[in-house]
Amino acid sequence: MSIGLGLIGTGFMGKAHALAYRAAGAVFGDLPELRLALLCDTPGEKAGAMARQFGFAAATDDWRTLVESPEVDIVSITTPNGLHKEMALAAMAAGKHVHCEKPMALTLDDAREMEAAARAAGVRTIVGYNYIHNPAFAHARRMIDEGVIGRPVHFRGVVDEDYQADPDLAWTWRATRAAAGLGTLGDLGCHLVSMAVGLMGPLESLLADTQTIHATRPLADGSGRAAVENEDTASAIVRFRSGAQGTLLTSRSAWGRKNRLDFEVHGTKGMIAFSQERMNELQLFVADEPRARQGFRTILTGPEHPPYGAFCPAPGHQLGFGDLKTIEAGHFLRAIAAGEPAYPDFTAALGFEAAIHAIDVAAREGRRVEL
Amino acid sequence: MSIGLGLIGTGFMGKAHALAYRAAGAVFGDLPELRLALLCDTPGEKAGAMARQFGFAAATDDWRTLVESPEVDIVSITTPNGLHKEMALAAMAAGKHVHCEKPMALTLDDAREMEAAARAAGVRTIVGYNYIHNPAFAHARRMIDEGVIGRPVHFRGVVDEDYQADPDLAWTWRATRAAAGLGTLGDLGCHLVSMAVGLMGPLESLLADTQTIHATRPLADGSGRAAVENEDTASAIVRFRSGAQGTLLTSRSAWGRKNRLDFEVHGTKGMIAFSQERMNELQLFVADEPRARQGFRTILTGPEHPPYGAFCPAPGHQLGFGDLKTIEAGHFLRAIAAGEPAYPDFTAALGFEAAIHAIDVAAREGRRVEL
Amino acid sequence: MSIGLGLIGTGFMGKAHALAYRAAGAVFGDLPELRLALLCDTPGEKAGAMARQFGFAAATDDWRTLVESPEVDIVSITTPNGLHKEMALAAMAAGKHVHCEKPMALTLDDAREMEAAARAAGVRTIVGYNYIHNPAFAHARRMIDEGVIGRPVHFRGVVDEDYQADPDLAWTWRATRAAAGLGTLGDLGCHLVSMAVGLMGPLESLLADTQTIHATRPLADGSGRAAVENEDTASAIVRFRSGAQGTLLTSRSAWGRKNRLDFEVHGTKGMIAFSQERMNELQLFVADEPRARQGFRTILTGPEHPPYGAFCPAPGHQLGFGDLKTIEAGHFLRAIAAGEPAYPDFTAALGFEAAIHAIDVAAREGRRVEL
Amino acid sequence: MSIGLGLIGTGFMGKAHALAYRAAGAVFGDLPELRLALLCDTPGEKAGAMARQFGFAAATDDWRTLVESPEVDIVSITTPNGLHKEMALAAMAAGKHVHCEKPMALTLDDAREMEAAARAAGVRTIVGYNYIHNPAFAHARRMIDEGVIGRPVHFRGVVDEDYQADPDLAWTWRATRAAAGLGTLGDLGCHLVSMAVGLMGPLESLLADTQTIHATRPLADGSGRAAVENEDTASAIVRFRSGAQGTLLTSRSAWGRKNRLDFEVHGTKGMIAFSQERMNELQLFVADEPRARQGFRTILTGPEHPPYGAFCPAPGHQLGFGDLKTIEAGHFLRAIAAGEPAYPDFTAALGFEAAIHAIDVAAREGRRVEL
Repeated sequence: MSIGLGLIGTGFMGKAHALAYRAAGAVFGDLPELRLALLCDTPGEKAGAMARQFGFAAATDDWRTLVESPEVDIVSITTPNGLHKEMALAAMAAGKHVHCEKPMALTLDDAREMEAAARAAGVRTIVGYNYIHNPAFAHARRMIDEGVIGRPVHFRGVVDEDYQADPDLAWTWRATRAAAGLGTLGDLGCHLVSMAVGLMGPLESLLADTQTIHATRPLADGSGRAAVENEDTASAIVRFRSGAQGTLLTSRSAWGRKNRLDFEVHGTKGMIAFSQERMNELQLFVADEPRARQGFRTILTGPEHPPYGAFCPAPGHQLGFGDLKTIEAGHFLRAIAAGEPAYPDFTAALGFEAAIHAIDVAAREGRRVEL
Repeated sequence: MSIGLGLIGTGFMGKAHALAYRAAGAVFGDLPELRLALLCDTPGEKAGAMARQFGFAAATDDWRTLVESPEVDIVSITTPNGLHKEMALAAMAAGKHVHCEKPMALTLDDAREMEAAARAAGVRTIVGYNYIHNPAFAHARRMIDEGVIGRPVHFRGVVDEDYQADPDLAWTWRATRAAAGLGTLGDLGCHLVSMAVGLMGPLESLLADTQTIHATRPLADGSGRAAVENEDTASAIVRFRSGAQGTLLTSRSAWGRKNRLDFEVHGTKGMIAFSQERMNELQLFVADEPRARQGFRTILTGPEHPPYGAFCPAPGHQLGFGDLKTIEAGHFLRAIAAGEPAYPDFTAALGFEAAIHAIDVAAREGRRVEL
Repeated sequence: MSIGLGLIGTGFMGKAHALAYRAAGAVFGDLPELRLALLCDTPGEKAGAMARQFGFAAATDDWRTLVESPEVDIVSITTPNGLHKEMALAAMAAGKHVHCEKPMALTLDDAREMEAAARAAGVRTIVGYNYIHNPAFAHARRMIDEGVIGRPVHFRGVVDEDYQADPDLAWTWRATRAAAGLGTLGDLGCHLVSMAVGLMGPLESLLADTQTIHATRPLADGSGRAAVENEDTASAIVRFRSGAQGTLLTSRSAWGRKNRLDFEVHGTKGMIAFSQERMNELQLFVADEPRARQGFRTILTGPEHPPYGAFCPAPGHQLGFGDLKTIEAGHFLRAIAAGEPAYPDFTAALGFEAAIHAIDVAAREGRRVEL
Repeated sequence: MSIGLGLIGTGFMGKAHALAYRAAGAVFGDLPELRLALLCDTPGEKAGAMARQFGFAAATDDWRTLVESPEVDIVSITTPNGLHKEMALAAMAAGKHVHCEKPMALTLDDAREMEAAARAAGVRTIVGYNYIHNPAFAHARRMIDEGVIGRPVHFRGVVDEDYQADPDLAWTWRATRAAAGLGTLGDLGCHLVSMAVGLMGPLESLLADTQTIHATRPLADGSGRAAVENEDTASAIVRFRSGAQGTLLTSRSAWGRKNRLDFEVHGTKGMIAFSQERMNELQLFVADEPRARQGFRTILTGPEHPPYGAFCPAPGHQLGFGDLKTIEAGHFLRAIAAGEPAYPDFTAALGFEAAIHAIDVAAREGRRVEL
């Protein structure tokens, strides 16, 4: 079996996908054969140059050509979020598996349409929630499943960056609901939801508030200022179906935070905490030591935390952001080969994204929103 | 001028007050003379023994005697919270200044009555919100005032301990609304509010949810289980009058947290963060360095952060919990000598405590509560 | 039994002693009664003013008067190091117990003379190695004694500050061998030795090198530059009598370090690490957990780590620098009352100080020095 | 120009090289074309299987075939250290560029022979000191060059792991001088030297001591115990040619340390510190802020620290261990294309390795060794 990859986009996430799929087969010994078949970007010269750099067999400037190419079995979509839906629907209609970056779509209705189409098409899908592929995250989840911290009863999560912190940044289309959809919730918040749900199970309902810190931003041409339509921060208090509670907090205007994606899970016997800016560490407190020796343990990930060992047999040597994407790509290829759902597929991802839209609604309408 | 101190209580906070008032005059060179006049506890033998240990001139087992003693100018109240009101009202009626531990009272109505009485009596009052006397906290506030991080636009605060984390702990009166009032909000949450308000200004309104993790606890005599009536966790999303938003989170069942009282203030030019478990450190990020050299700075407190230097002329040598109480005592003595309000007096503290009751109401009634 | 304290000096350490002796009796319930009898400084006005601030019964500007006063049982010596010897010898000759700040003397010969006099006089002595009175240090030692980390086989220690880091600082007498003796070894290095010996047992021999970073410094009057005669940094590789090895490193010119007094003890089953700038934390690694959950634990000190609980019954609330001095004072008073040696007395301290002089000799002579 | 890679070995470092060379061209847009030409391991079946996994065009079980293959331009040597010399000499004799893992050889004489051969052959060489390719390290060096911390005057370095900490580990050939050469100095210490020299310039002389903690280890077959001939720890006090001093410390028996490769550079105006276990962070202290705001800054690496941006355009997203090897591979390919020396080539690496042998000699002979 040989699987052909068609990749749309060569930016931040496009390159991340290209590097991940290039590496996955060599990292893991158990993957189906993969061909880097076709790369799409515009203009065509750029597509060609990047295809040479990334090692793709061919290039195109027309994503529909890619979607329909018989060389392509997986369509990887890394374009701006507003384009995901049309591309994914076309790819699935053509019988292709789809690897789509997050968030799936600008609106919940669009995401629902994509999810329904995926179920109808019977193809494999995965959405790029790469942080939950971290061996540290998998270990946290495993420890919870094993009862190491008892019953999980409370969750605290925060995801902050500072790319919109500067008051003097120029206005762009990213400030509009029409072109960008949600603000920090769509960029960052949905990653946090993927972690919360992955560790605590499904959400039940929530209260929320949001804030646009910089109500207007200067136009780049100096002609004045335009409104920022989506949120800079969002804060939600959530209830999980399990009865647990928690909070989900996010800001894209948090000076100094570069990729702060932190959580803590409070259990009846202990606590687990994690910070993405130190992604190779996990904090664990359990109450079963002699009291004078209790304390949070900093667990450095290593071969004991699969699939770390596929990258390096020595602990504490550190995985990087790109490695998480490689794990994601490997997982998707394995799912395709096995004919089983990947995680998170469009159905699971729809669940994550329903939550960020619920936060938006709860904040705008001032009421508890059920999920 | 010589001021006589009458202290009621010799437990955790009673000893803290005794040590603080003993030390304050020697630490600071500018305080009025203080006499450790009278110590009250029951039984009388205990009061006598502790008076000898703490250096008080006399002891009594009757707090009314203390309140009325002509030797006593300040009444320090460190008894269980349900007793504060009666003692404070009697002390103020007798014309005494009052140093009351937090929270002021079990209910907001009681706290309001105390505040009104203080205003009517014209005496000096202070409530034991000791964490805001930390030189690190004062420095954070000063940096905000000086504009170091621009306009403060968002606040995140959390205060967690684990003294109620163990599911097997026996039921006590602390689990009842009647005897203990609020749960983690009263014990811990009000400290966090004191920090939030101190840094961001007054609160305007909030949403909240609370959770009782352990719905019942075993009775100590093994005869069964009894209900826990107050909250183990509370989460609030707040709006400040300034337009800033934020969150206030607390748990008394957070394994591994011993005195986690953390905040971060997001400004338009930078960020300040603090963690009480490392109370001699302040984190500062400002965006005015060359980008390649930007990062959070760990500022170790020292003589540049008054009144640290009164304890030690060398930076990084660390103040402790007791030193914060000494600063509080010194501040109160100075206010009395100057005939000016201390901070936080009953009026300011009522503001803090209104917030924790508002969180309780918001959670129980499922609605936004104005302050 | 009532013990009278005579304190010489009111600077950094003088105030620290005053505060500690004021507090000790109230903190600990088991101490003999103490009178703050007599305070000495010059001029007499200053002595009188500080006596009032610190609560001493009387003041003098003549240390010989203090040493001979019948009101005085303990003589606390906090003057510049070059004065310690004469004062200590006089005090011991007068039959007084002596609490001397570290280092005991400028030269090893002087320290030996003091130690011999102490043995001859039969009085109690203690030297101000306050960091080993930290409950965290005591806990580290106890864990080693209990075998928690197996046999201790290697020690790494460093003590750095930055008070001599600035190249533009003016020359002072502290730069001279005659007036100040050693450089960073005397100020800082001897503290590190006290920790090393306390945890690993006696030293056997060492290799060393030292460095004077700023060979000259500007004279304060602008008239030129003068030589710095003592070392800014010192590094030693040591062998302990137990067969363990290790390193002792120190710098007084280490920018950004305010009180970095760090150690790690490598054992055959685990490791303990400590950093004075986070003096309420202890790091412990033991290899007896399931491998996937192993990691360094951050133990926050609390009542489980005596005598923390005498200050505060709640863990994680933090002791400060002054509290260590209070523990030291309490320990000395208890030793005097019991008629037993305090630790470290002049004999033990001589051992510490022999090590810093050995480092100096090893560095100057380029050879291994036996202890 | 197309460059063919021949890789010998498929273990820890073999896989690291394979992944790095696979990725380098796609990560960096400016590299010459690379072919994964030939992979060597034994037995041949393993070589074939790994060639398929890693994407090599062909496989062999005979390293001499690889070295002489016309398809091969670079020979990557990742076999046990005792084999490096023969392979490297053969490869260079065949006119191939050589990418050799560290240390170059078991003895200094062997390394010298390799270095002389490289100069004679005129080929490009590089040795796998991958940690100095970290963008954080490059940034540290650049800041030193730019004078950000003034003149560097002191260096502290430590490299610890715990792979030989367990007293019950079985004896292997790695414990022998004949088969393994040095102990922790060869495995770990040479990495530290590469950092020290990279930041401070060449070493001049040193004092040292070493220690074999576990003098014997049990034979795997239970037939008794055998001697450990090489060192578990090594400690050196060094002088640099610049006049700076410092220390180099290493242990392979340091429980809990997984890849602790830490340094600090003391400058006359500031300090830089780094810890490999948090390899995306750099600590910087500079004394040019207002004193009350000074502190160590935690700089998270990002696109401002080249070549981080080639992997990810967003700061704080973390590179991993494998990415360092990719940078190393890219650097070597670029050097070959440009016809310029790579760093560290055999000449530079010989300098590093001379230092670890000097430490060994200094320790055994108890004298200062010049470099």
